[in-house]
Amino acid sequence: MDTLKTLLEHKSIRKYTTQPISQSDLDLILKAAVRASTTGNMQLYSIVVSTSEEEKKQLAPAHFNQPMVTAAPVVLTFCADFNRFNQWCKYRNAEPGYDNLQSFMWAVIDTVAATQNACVAAEALGLGICYLGTTTYNAQQIIDVLNLPKGVVPITTITLGYPAEQPSQTDRLPLQSVVHYGKYADYTAANINEAFAQKEALPETQELLKQNNKENLAQVFTDCRYKKADNQYFSVEFLRVLEQQGFMNNKQE
Amino acid sequence: MDTLKTLLEHKSIRKYTTQPISQSDLDLILKAAVRASTTGNMQLYSIVVSTSEEEKKQLAPAHFNQPMVTAAPVVLTFCADFNRFNQWCKYRNAEPGYDNLQSFMWAVIDTVAATQNACVAAEALGLGICYLGTTTYNAQQIIDVLNLPKGVVPITTITLGYPAEQPSQTDRLPLQSVVHYGKYADYTAANINEAFAQKEALPETQELLKQNNKENLAQVFTDCRYKKADNQYFSVEFLRVLEQQGFMNNKQE
Repeated sequence: MDTLKTLLEHKSIRKYTTQPISQSDLDLILKAAVRASTTGNMQLYSIVVSTSEEEKKQLAPAHFNQPMVTAAPVVLTFCADFNRFNQWCKYRNAEPGYDNLQSFMWAVIDTVAATQNACVAAEALGLGICYLGTTTYNAQQIIDVLNLPKGVVPITTITLGYPAEQPSQTDRLPLQSVVHYGKYADYTAANINEAFAQKEALPETQELLKQNNKENLAQVFTDCRYKKADNQYFSVEFLRVLEQQGFMNNKQE
Repeated sequence: MDTLKTLLEHKSIRKYTTQPISQSDLDLILKAAVRASTTGNMQLYSIVVSTSEEEKKQLAPAHFNQPMVTAAPVVLTFCADFNRFNQWCKYRNAEPGYDNLQSFMWAVIDTVAATQNACVAAEALGLGICYLGTTTYNAQQIIDVLNLPKGVVPITTITLGYPAEQPSQTDRLPLQSVVHYGKYADYTAANINEAFAQKEALPETQELLKQNNKENLAQVFTDCRYKKADNQYFSVEFLRVLEQQGFMNNKQE
């Protein structure tokens, strides 16, 4: 399939048929993932493949039991991983200094670039994908289920399967609202109106306001979907996970 | 171009011809970027486009004056951005609670997924790309040059241009060394040897050991390329940037 067509036609798919994904297709997806650019060619990630009922059932609670976790034939958990690299260093009489925030950022960037390549490859093969943002919320549960050692932090998860739905493509902000030429031009009230006007006018948005009994879409986000108290709770927890997994030694010696 | 071919044939390109990139190609790349999956369809990123000599010259020091910054016809700085979303909330009488680590992680994931889509699109159009990992090192310099307001943090940068070199594809670890089925199987000494054997045996590696006067490749990483003291210095600095830009309010109220 043509690359630009694949990219421009992306839709997240949350409902899958029971058709399994062949090992050869899965291998192609994984090979595409690892071809993404990676910091210093260190490949600071690991990918955990879950395919059995039991494996997916164990992961489901960490994703608030969203039904696609157990319904998808394949679930891929993409983890920032300095464990493998650190072990290599230790076996080679080299002293790793990667227990800090910069190293975590390299690993996160590597991990997400690999994830996105996997998604693009999967879609080129006729599969549908969905990212699970719950991965950083319940990182500890995922660490426990997948036996992730120190140096490894789950960053994102994708569910994969043949589409059993054909949703329309979701909206995006106008390109000029997210792209800045030369310098970042901070937003005025008029720019904000321009950026969000189309989204606010969508029939789906009107439906959401009724369902949630809110004045406007922004309030649906702040009061229902991504609430401050939840974000704070899961931030404290994720910071604890980063410390526990060995990425918050940010003192200069 | 075929999607899987594009993904599997990726090579980072650091030398570019002087041929400019047409606005229509740049628009296609940016459109592909914004089609990537994004947390709750919030599009938590901004992309700053630098094309003039002056703009690129100003960015170069933040990237340790790597020559591709000024030589590439286009430099794209991908920033995690909650500023636009927060402003929208405020104009809509909604109280944003996105000044924390979880929100930063959503924005980083959104940002890198968009970046990787831009890379894939660019390569499909015959362009070469290179990621600049220096972006998180010198985030403050980039904030200053690009006028990034609170809520915005530069995460990664790509240089884009028509290739003036045809390097061979870099190695990757064996797929089985980065993929785990079911649970994460921690590495044994034998697994580590298996993972790194091919890389350690490359002629380029032998050349690096001579150049750097080191016993092995791991020491080239720990002692020359990614040194503990540097990582710590830039981690302290990046943590300060995250606090300053409004993402480290990780206390529960």
